Amino acid sequence: MLKPYVHKVQYYETDRMGVTHHSNYLRFMEEARVDYLEQIGYSYGRMESEGLASPVISVNIDYKKPTTFADEITIAVRIVEVTPVKLLIGYTMERQGEAVCAATSLHCFVDEKGHPISLKRVKPELYALLSSLTEKRS
Amino acid sequence: MLKPYVHKVQYYETDRMGVTHHSNYLRFMEEARVDYLEQIGYSYGRMESEGLASPVISVNIDYKKPTTFADEITIAVRIVEVTPVKLLIGYTMERQGEAVCAATSLHCFVDEKGHPISLKRVKPELYALLSSLTEKRS
Amino acid sequence: MLKPYVHKVQYYETDRMGVTHHSNYLRFMEEARVDYLEQIGYSYGRMESEGLASPVISVNIDYKKPTTFADEITIAVRIVEVTPVKLLIGYTMERQGEAVCAATSLHCFVDEKGHPISLKRVKPELYALLSSLTEKRS
Amino acid sequence: MLKPYVHKVQYYETDRMGVTHHSNYLRFMEEARVDYLEQIGYSYGRMESEGLASPVISVNIDYKKPTTFADEITIAVRIVEVTPVKLLIGYTMERQGEAVCAATSLHCFVDEKGHPISLKRVKPELYALLSSLTEKRS
Repeated sequence: MLKPYVHKVQYYETDRMGVTHHSNYLRFMEEARVDYLEQIGYSYGRMESEGLASPVISVNIDYKKPTTFADEITIAVRIVEVTPVKLLIGYTMERQGEAVCAATSLHCFVDEKGHPISLKRVKPELYALLSSLTEKRS
Repeated sequence: MLKPYVHKVQYYETDRMGVTHHSNYLRFMEEARVDYLEQIGYSYGRMESEGLASPVISVNIDYKKPTTFADEITIAVRIVEVTPVKLLIGYTMERQGEAVCAATSLHCFVDEKGHPISLKRVKPELYALLSSLTEKRS
Repeated sequence: MLKPYVHKVQYYETDRMGVTHHSNYLRFMEEARVDYLEQIGYSYGRMESEGLASPVISVNIDYKKPTTFADEITIAVRIVEVTPVKLLIGYTMERQGEAVCAATSLHCFVDEKGHPISLKRVKPELYALLSSLTEKRS
Repeated sequence: MLKPYVHKVQYYETDRMGVTHHSNYLRFMEEARVDYLEQIGYSYGRMESEGLASPVISVNIDYKKPTTFADEITIAVRIVEVTPVKLLIGYTMERQGEAVCAATSLHCFVDEKGHPISLKRVKPELYALLSSLTEKRS
């Protein structure tokens, strides 16, 4: 079983409205995604050393409740869909069981030169792994 | 005529992939929105002094091209739609005429206590102003 | 015994030189200070609820070795000196036993209105606690 | 005459104390330094293309007055001292003529591989330029 990621909100992440600035959730998503990939055995470091990257091509974020300094945000990551050329990741963020934010990020796969690649062709074992973890196989 | 906002990418906004980290575009959107509201005569400062705020409730961002340090990103802001309780803002970002990012942010209106309000009822003149600037009236 | 604080460097904290951007260490110092105060029983939350704050009035940072994404930085915090009106905090940051950064932050004490106060007079028990933890008593 | 750099404080740069978070001044220093080097004809871009970098090895920052959202901070940069292997830069930050922050950053010079170099030997023309701009020649 994968462990959800926990981000404790820092003072420097709040703004003068007294809440976590909305731009930081996009960073929490990256933190949780990095942690998730590490947990499934395919860390960013490993991807980089294998000449592979998976840049963000779009994001959607729904802010449901404000959070603030010292709040612990639990972030559950899931693979929503993977195709040979795209990866859709979902994020559910909760504070003490209450939903505070829901988001998705869409990624492509590129080689060291930044050229788009087919993950299925170039890294079939990672493609198979992500597929096995997917809610909606494709 | 409103002037588009220009953000020059800072060194601290890049990441080790050598490009502007994707989370910063959400900050550029806020910078451009703040500038836009100031240009139409309704700055954040004025809104705050009148006991009004317009928090972000969702965002969509499409990353089209990477940018990097010292790039000048020109951001055009437009009011896509305004209703008594919601405001949808669109952003088009270009670098030397080339589209690099497109985004929207959805906002509600709240009073000083953070309670949702009808802008049309509480600040009819701002509602009228935003409506007059809107692509798609509602 | 107090536990040192560990910060794992995030991707968004790196810059295009491939290393942790130097501005982030000032944020790591805040994270570690918040954690330290919580460990000694005087969290920021408690301070705030008691109408007390301790803003930063100066900082010194010596960068010794670059760090990068996924590095775990262990930060030891110590009270260097406390006087009725000032607090000097020291930070030693290591990665796997190797010193990467050393820093200090100097703080004053203010009430809810931001007016400087004597900690010794206003919160004698916190003053006594910080004094007891100090390397160099004054 | 060199033009001082102006940074307008962004909403996302404030914290829940209602002021500009202190870590951001270190970023304003970088912005102003980048602008200064560009003005004297030696931009970061030029330095990078010539295989030269000048990493920060220490900083001192004195916070004098808080600033907040929408404040315009004028930053004057000066070369305090340059030696073959080090560069000390000073920063004076004002808001409408009132000093809000004073700082210095100390830099070394490195080649593309990150090895320390003598600027005087490797880039004598840049060394001469920086020397001619220095308050205290060495």
